[in-house]
Amino acid sequence: MARAPDDKTVYIGRKPRMTYVIAASKQMNDAGAVILKARGKSISQAVDVAEIVRRRYIKDATVDDVQIATEVLEGEDGERANVSSIQIFMSRPLLEDGSLPPPVDLFADRERTERRPRRYGEEE
Amino acid sequence: MARAPDDKTVYIGRKPRMTYVIAASKQMNDAGAVILKARGKSISQAVDVAEIVRRRYIKDATVDDVQIATEVLEGEDGERANVSSIQIFMSRPLLEDGSLPPPVDLFADRERTERRPRRYGEEE
Repeated sequence: MARAPDDKTVYIGRKPRMTYVIAASKQMNDAGAVILKARGKSISQAVDVAEIVRRRYIKDATVDDVQIATEVLEGEDGERANVSSIQIFMSRPLLEDGSLPPPVDLFADRERTERRPRRYGEEE
Repeated sequence: MARAPDDKTVYIGRKPRMTYVIAASKQMNDAGAVILKARGKSISQAVDVAEIVRRRYIKDATVDDVQIATEVLEGEDGERANVSSIQIFMSRPLLEDGSLPPPVDLFADRERTERRPRRYGEEE
């Protein structure tokens, strides 16, 4: 793990949700932890991403902390605007020898069920 | 405080944001605590409400915990769908004798600044 700490961050925006689910799950595989960050209307998407990662992909993952804050953004005209932000800290438990657990196959069968979200509830 | 525990909950939906800011601030005045709950796209609004309550109205309020989860909703046709949810737990510190701090005047001068959100940053 020669990564810088802030390499663990996945910024959640307006791309399709599964883009971020896969990015965050890969990060969990590679580093054992991820921080999801979002601002404004993307906050809801960040919570969706965290829940899908935890329930469908990295099933031993835990949400360790959720922090909310206000950021002051400055526009090109120098005007400032407040925007809410969220940080969701997730991790996988390490093995007894302190190493990362084996990576999860992110493209296994579950991908089919992702296409039928209305059946999630029935399957559990 | 003869309220039932779940009286402390304010459900955040699609009404104008200030509706919920005032409801949550009143709850903080009356009971010293509030739980903001939201689902789906209203999650971003719940974070906005918490931040505005904390920064503009109940300035001694703290965000004690933020929990995210998945709820399974059943439609009229019996189909189930997953939806993300958030709960934001906020409280005011009690006085030394264990009583609630004096209520905050929710309609004081700050209301004027709420109408000029672009100036928030400059004022702080």
